[in-house]
Amino acid sequence: MVTGRRNRPNLNPRADGQRTAFKRGCRESRTMYDRLKGFRDFYPDEMSARREVADTVEAAAARYGFREIGTPTLESTALYTDKSGDEIVDQLYNFTDKGGREVTLTPELTPTVARMVVAKSQALSKPIKWFSTRPFWRYEQVQQGRFREFYQTNVDIFGSSEPEADAEILAFAADALTDLGLDGDDFEFRVSHRDLLGGLLAAFDADVDTDTAIRAVDKRDKIEDGEYHGLLNDAGLRYEQAETFDALLETDELSDLVAFAETDRVADAVENLERVLDAAEDFGVRKYCTVSLETARGLDYYTGVVFECFDSTGEVSRSVFGGGRYDDLIERFGGQPTPAVGVAPGHATLQLLCERAGVWPDGTPATDYYVLNVGDTRAVAAEVARQLRNRGHIVETDVSGRSFGAQMSYADSINAETVVIVGERDLENGEVTIKDMATGDQTTAPIDDFPGDLDRPTYEEYE
Amino acid sequence: MVTGRRNRPNLNPRADGQRTAFKRGCRESRTMYDRLKGFRDFYPDEMSARREVADTVEAAAARYGFREIGTPTLESTALYTDKSGDEIVDQLYNFTDKGGREVTLTPELTPTVARMVVAKSQALSKPIKWFSTRPFWRYEQVQQGRFREFYQTNVDIFGSSEPEADAEILAFAADALTDLGLDGDDFEFRVSHRDLLGGLLAAFDADVDTDTAIRAVDKRDKIEDGEYHGLLNDAGLRYEQAETFDALLETDELSDLVAFAETDRVADAVENLERVLDAAEDFGVRKYCTVSLETARGLDYYTGVVFECFDSTGEVSRSVFGGGRYDDLIERFGGQPTPAVGVAPGHATLQLLCERAGVWPDGTPATDYYVLNVGDTRAVAAEVARQLRNRGHIVETDVSGRSFGAQMSYADSINAETVVIVGERDLENGEVTIKDMATGDQTTAPIDDFPGDLDRPTYEEYE
Repeated sequence: MVTGRRNRPNLNPRADGQRTAFKRGCRESRTMYDRLKGFRDFYPDEMSARREVADTVEAAAARYGFREIGTPTLESTALYTDKSGDEIVDQLYNFTDKGGREVTLTPELTPTVARMVVAKSQALSKPIKWFSTRPFWRYEQVQQGRFREFYQTNVDIFGSSEPEADAEILAFAADALTDLGLDGDDFEFRVSHRDLLGGLLAAFDADVDTDTAIRAVDKRDKIEDGEYHGLLNDAGLRYEQAETFDALLETDELSDLVAFAETDRVADAVENLERVLDAAEDFGVRKYCTVSLETARGLDYYTGVVFECFDSTGEVSRSVFGGGRYDDLIERFGGQPTPAVGVAPGHATLQLLCERAGVWPDGTPATDYYVLNVGDTRAVAAEVARQLRNRGHIVETDVSGRSFGAQMSYADSINAETVVIVGERDLENGEVTIKDMATGDQTTAPIDDFPGDLDRPTYEEYE
Repeated sequence: MVTGRRNRPNLNPRADGQRTAFKRGCRESRTMYDRLKGFRDFYPDEMSARREVADTVEAAAARYGFREIGTPTLESTALYTDKSGDEIVDQLYNFTDKGGREVTLTPELTPTVARMVVAKSQALSKPIKWFSTRPFWRYEQVQQGRFREFYQTNVDIFGSSEPEADAEILAFAADALTDLGLDGDDFEFRVSHRDLLGGLLAAFDADVDTDTAIRAVDKRDKIEDGEYHGLLNDAGLRYEQAETFDALLETDELSDLVAFAETDRVADAVENLERVLDAAEDFGVRKYCTVSLETARGLDYYTGVVFECFDSTGEVSRSVFGGGRYDDLIERFGGQPTPAVGVAPGHATLQLLCERAGVWPDGTPATDYYVLNVGDTRAVAAEVARQLRNRGHIVETDVSGRSFGAQMSYADSINAETVVIVGERDLENGEVTIKDMATGDQTTAPIDDFPGDLDRPTYEEYE
């Protein structure tokens, strides 16, 4: 019932998660509960695919020496209201706890890791390289690839301002994607530089509100030229300046920008971007990068190179994930100045990209053995199952007192590769029957040799 | 600062998680944030140990064919207020969301999985065998091994009322503990039967409130005889009946109970308990079980066999975790009658037991290689690092533009096993230097042979 309901537009959003009383025949009235809108239940098949993807992303981070951390679900609301952008604050799941504290379900990881870095700053050797996968929460409009509870793997380096740190973040992100089965035709990293945009804006003879202008740039792809120029005009540029700015962002030659601005700020930003791209070349990830100055990233705290991952085919029209350098943030949270760079692949958009490319795992359950017992053979069947489990295999056995046929049908439903039939008559002959579920072939094996010295005995060994 | 603060009693509980403004020298005033009381930050060493333990517990569940599910952090508050015990409701982190819904941070998994089973009841083949590891939240007094955010691995079987299902849950729990390095001298499962207690109470010539009496039994170990008998008296037993009841619970012969009660209910409960113990024998877990009728489990929804894991030495004085059969719950949540049995190891008490037994992992970071580059050798060093990572190794390289000495010191701090030194002079000779960090020995290797065809080349291969 819930399944059907999920596919229909919900005309009464307040009804989500409320009880639905219903009568069934002459039984007493029952209560059925729905999950909350924007929250998801993951049944085993879907969860198996999600776990495989998360494990792949985390394994890529671990190979670069990023270390896993664990972080709280709740933080003080002040951690967000003091520092974060208005958009996030409007979307907080915040409340007053039973002790009178103002608390919030974490909408993102960065303030938490900043707090953790500040708390143990002296004890932590630099660079600090951390990762973690976990859910976050924002009260926002639910749409394709966007939920109120969403999962990210955050990967950050603290304590290095060098271009190699930016390049390592890019290289990790590329490895994660290629390990998932994607290749250079599937995705691209659009790379920009926050201070290059700021420096260019400052080079105009105008009183420009940089944050407003950068937010306009961030919307560039989603709006018409007229609206875009209007937004830049609101930010303080005259219309002909807006057009010049637009043309500058589309240049293929970064030296054009230096020549236009004639400021150290723009020259330094271009140099930094070029050094990051050089390091990315050495780190094997330059080939996935396109310089794209229109990529601005929405969040206010970036300071240097920023990038977004896009589906090369454009079929997934939104940014898959993004990252960049945020050198001021630790200081804003009360710490010593500590340069930082990071990326946070979101699993919902990653799933859209993987599905588009046909590499999302199918999540079908795998079972190595089903040990079937018929008659008074439970002790032997349990011992066989135990020995197979001791070898690390996935082994199920009957826990429901079922018939031979029902057990065989269950073994089939869990995709058991091999069924070991422990029957009374076989056992009298000191044997068990080994059935290959793919072919249906079966043969007997001496119970003393099963599994015996073999690590993973199958039908082939005994035929 | 936060570190020191954590160890001092907090005289003003409302101050947790509030900002602490402080001045440092002549700099501007900064803001520092604390984490919330009862919530924990896990830095890499601690997280590594926790992850290893969670992976071990989950791997044990997976070998029995339990499948992982993913569940939401928030549920409708009604999911708890309608069905759960008062104790849980008093401890909820509940609030009204921005859409006016009454929502709660999940204090336990059972109502959520019940909801999920009900939602897809027809599509799910039985038995349903699920596990998941995740945090839960209760606003309660923080003490040793008890936090407001706490982690559990829930493992449940739905759809079988057979004793093999109870035994499989016990067997999984024992495997998880022995896989962690614990043995039969470290822990015991105290096994009881909820309906046996209920049946015995009903056999007295008295008007007994069963739930009140069972809660008294659950407190038995923590209170004096007088108070215990008083609580049983409050539940409706006369004092001499309370003493008889007490003596019955301590008998070694389950047949005594059948003889005393002379009811089918008690006879059936004893038979069920004996059948579970027989299945536990076949499943290799009977040796960890002690029949202990005083083990009642606090939660109201158990219906059959219940058990708690205790530290055999008594050093960890609280129950480590518990589980049991709850055959009525799915129906109470609106589903078809569906028998169920499960267990939920809590990681905080599991940590206390593992630490007591000396088997808690040390969590020291492991690094297979540090690739050190000096001079203009970044491209070669990055290529070596990439090849080693492609073999699955944990490899760090310089991202901070550091000197030889600083890099060597960092390599030491991350416990690198092997340092590969890529220097300009070596490279001119087509070589790199391989240093074994345990012995300090070093030698050179031809760059073309490193890593070459080797999966995990170390100093030994080239000396």
